[in-house]
Amino acid sequence: MSPLRSWFIIPRGSHFSLANIPFGIISTESSKTPRVAVAIGDHALDLEVFAANNGFSALSTIQPHQDVFSQPSLNAFAVLGRPVHSIVRKYLQSVLAEDTPYPDVLKTNSTLRRQALIPLKDVKTHLPFKIGDYTDFYAGLNHAYNVGVLFRGPSNALQPNYKHLPVGYHGRASSVVVSGTPIRRPNGQILSNPLAEKKVPTLSACQKLDIELELGAFVCKPNSMGEPVPISEAEESLFGVVLMNDWSARDIQAWEYVPLGPFNAKNFGTTISAWVVLADALEPFKTKGLENDSKVLPYLQERDENTVYDIQLQVSLKTKTGNSTTITKTSSRNLLWSFPQMLTHHSITGCPFNVGDLLGSGTISGLEQSERGSLLEQNENGKTSIKLSGSEVRHFLEDGDEITITGVCGSDEEALVGFGECVGRIEPALKL
Amino acid sequence: MSPLRSWFIIPRGSHFSLANIPFGIISTESSKTPRVAVAIGDHALDLEVFAANNGFSALSTIQPHQDVFSQPSLNAFAVLGRPVHSIVRKYLQSVLAEDTPYPDVLKTNSTLRRQALIPLKDVKTHLPFKIGDYTDFYAGLNHAYNVGVLFRGPSNALQPNYKHLPVGYHGRASSVVVSGTPIRRPNGQILSNPLAEKKVPTLSACQKLDIELELGAFVCKPNSMGEPVPISEAEESLFGVVLMNDWSARDIQAWEYVPLGPFNAKNFGTTISAWVVLADALEPFKTKGLENDSKVLPYLQERDENTVYDIQLQVSLKTKTGNSTTITKTSSRNLLWSFPQMLTHHSITGCPFNVGDLLGSGTISGLEQSERGSLLEQNENGKTSIKLSGSEVRHFLEDGDEITITGVCGSDEEALVGFGECVGRIEPALKL
Ligand SMILES: [Ca+2]
Ligand SMILES: [Ca+2]
Ligand SMILES: [Mg+2]
Ligand SMILES: [Mg+2]
Ligand code: NI
Repeated sequence: MSPLRSWFIIPRGSHFSLANIPFGIISTESSKTPRVAVAIGDHALDLEVFAANNGFSALSTIQPHQDVFSQPSLNAFAVLGRPVHSIVRKYLQSVLAEDTPYPDVLKTNSTLRRQALIPLKDVKTHLPFKIGDYTDFYAGLNHAYNVGVLFRGPSNALQPNYKHLPVGYHGRASSVVVSGTPIRRPNGQILSNPLAEKKVPTLSACQKLDIELELGAFVCKPNSMGEPVPISEAEESLFGVVLMNDWSARDIQAWEYVPLGPFNAKNFGTTISAWVVLADALEPFKTKGLENDSKVLPYLQERDENTVYDIQLQVSLKTKTGNSTTITKTSSRNLLWSFPQMLTHHSITGCPFNVGDLLGSGTISGLEQSERGSLLEQNENGKTSIKLSGSEVRHFLEDGDEITITGVCGSDEEALVGFGECVGRIEPALKL
Repeated sequence: MSPLRSWFIIPRGSHFSLANIPFGIISTESSKTPRVAVAIGDHALDLEVFAANNGFSALSTIQPHQDVFSQPSLNAFAVLGRPVHSIVRKYLQSVLAEDTPYPDVLKTNSTLRRQALIPLKDVKTHLPFKIGDYTDFYAGLNHAYNVGVLFRGPSNALQPNYKHLPVGYHGRASSVVVSGTPIRRPNGQILSNPLAEKKVPTLSACQKLDIELELGAFVCKPNSMGEPVPISEAEESLFGVVLMNDWSARDIQAWEYVPLGPFNAKNFGTTISAWVVLADALEPFKTKGLENDSKVLPYLQERDENTVYDIQLQVSLKTKTGNSTTITKTSSRNLLWSFPQMLTHHSITGCPFNVGDLLGSGTISGLEQSERGSLLEQNENGKTSIKLSGSEVRHFLEDGDEITITGVCGSDEEALVGFGECVGRIEPALKL
């Protein structure tokens, strides 16, 4: 299939080709109220302005709902359902296509082009959804195995439940932030001498601040309390995907997490990318996940073999000195469980979902050293150091370090479906 | 101090004496839009109607904010801050007092009395807050000890961190429901033979459905991400308290919870009482919590000795046959950590809170068998049976069982500060 071409200039290698059309929330210097946009090349198409100027004149379906584009989150748009998201994306693709059947809408309408197409560098992006509940899973088998080996040795690395259900925990929705938001190093209780017989915690700035390379998926269809989402309907409930960095305080976690799981180690910040790539746009990049050699219960069995996405993921670390090093390259196919399986398992109890709820995949690591999605795995819990370009090394994150996750599907430079960046820089801990 | 008397008939023994004035959200057959009310005796005072009819004419502070009483949740009222909650409560007390300085407002205004004072039996109550995030703690030392003994024996009953920090986990906000909402028995993965070498889960209706007797506290003051709430300011951030039943699926929990904590075992429903008792109303009932024999870090040290509430709690179980048995009587003083300590610890990382966030205390148990706040503790994980009145027995909850938690402060029958009821009845599991 040759790529869709646009009359609009989309730089080669852009994550936001015509094949993508991801949705986000923007504001600008001259118009500070957050509203809905899509990214196209190195521009945002402001859908509030577009809608207000008859941009959707040829798409009657959306006309009664155009106020969704004036909202400060994607929730109202998401509520309309996947068939509508699909129609809107296809319509925008056709409006932007070289041979658009609707040239008057934008191609030859220079006034609207000037108003609605804003360079991304002039745009401020906001958290794309108002998130009700956020759940983080642990579906990255290689990560779970690597971490298990570090703490329990290879023969007990995975817990007995791991291959039977997508292990997960409820996370903190209030601290999910959009790419670019600074992350302050947390303070918390840690053990300065974890091996001592008598455990004496101190209050300290986190000394083992880590990243977790993850994907996030947003829910677009609510279910009532008591009514599980069957696996056959779970895909229809998922709006789209973002990159996610689940910042983690390993020393706080080690002390606090028995018996109820990670808590303060996780709730100080979780960064997601600003542009949500629709499930539809990712459809061509579906592939098989990691093989599950245990028999999965019927309620979690999917009809299709290809249930996860082959997104090429990359993590780079830029230090205060300006040195930048790619520390991880892997694919998001390294998951044992798909997002539909996560949603179905999560709701099997009757747990209700609201539109805008966020599911995290769990840390994604490949098999190789260079494919590990957390510093903990790379440094073997602090035993080895991670070499950066120049002469710098790291065990865990230092103040001023900036982490950038990127993700992209496809190889045709004119038809990439990418996520842009998921960035966060570490600020020094608050002095208490 | 002799009790405040009212010109209005407040039945002896009412939880909602003039000393209380709890806030909630109501609707009625004739006016279905949820709005704010207070409970007084066996009536609700509809504050939307009261405000619209000059009820607050003598309280200038609140006049610019009267729209908060027309909201479908207490969030907007809570945002105004504790000094305002205090003023509004005192004003309503004075309006209802026998010797009210404002007789025209309500006492002699029979039209408004008829419109605004609605029998509680004619009122539908709703979830009092729009809850952003819900966190459940584990501050009931006796419960943590009892459960620890069951699973690890008496010498390792408490984890090393237990007395150093309030252990907690992020919960599921979407399934917090108001008293009276039916609870459907969850389905989930359980081990029919937990002791077998090879663990083979089945999908089943929960067979160990349990209760947890808890208190919940609502947050009324936001903090920015990165800015902890100091212990000296934590009380100002807490709006008030409700009774809470943290329904728990013990068999689902046992299989799923290692290593990331309870998840599906908890997310199918959490019931809270409808009327939120203001922190101000509970002030006279503060007392010392359980003694902590470890040295608490300074950031968690409180100035006052009396940091928890002496609420007389009771749990009753009514079976399908109509038989009702009081299965637990205890006091909420059985906590090792106070709500201010929970909030301060939770935010020490910089975790941001929003108004309406909910903190659960953890299961409250006294030292005696008859004071245990969960069935798991009463039946020693299924080993012994719980005798009910008549000839019925229970290990865990059966379909049709109804659990009612009540809580009340004080002993003067004309000045009780009570919570009403927190009720939930078990419906059969969905057939899958
Ligand atoms: Ca994670
Ligand atoms: Ca609990
Ligand atoms: Mg996080
Ligand atoms: Mg619960
Ligand atoms: Ni009456």
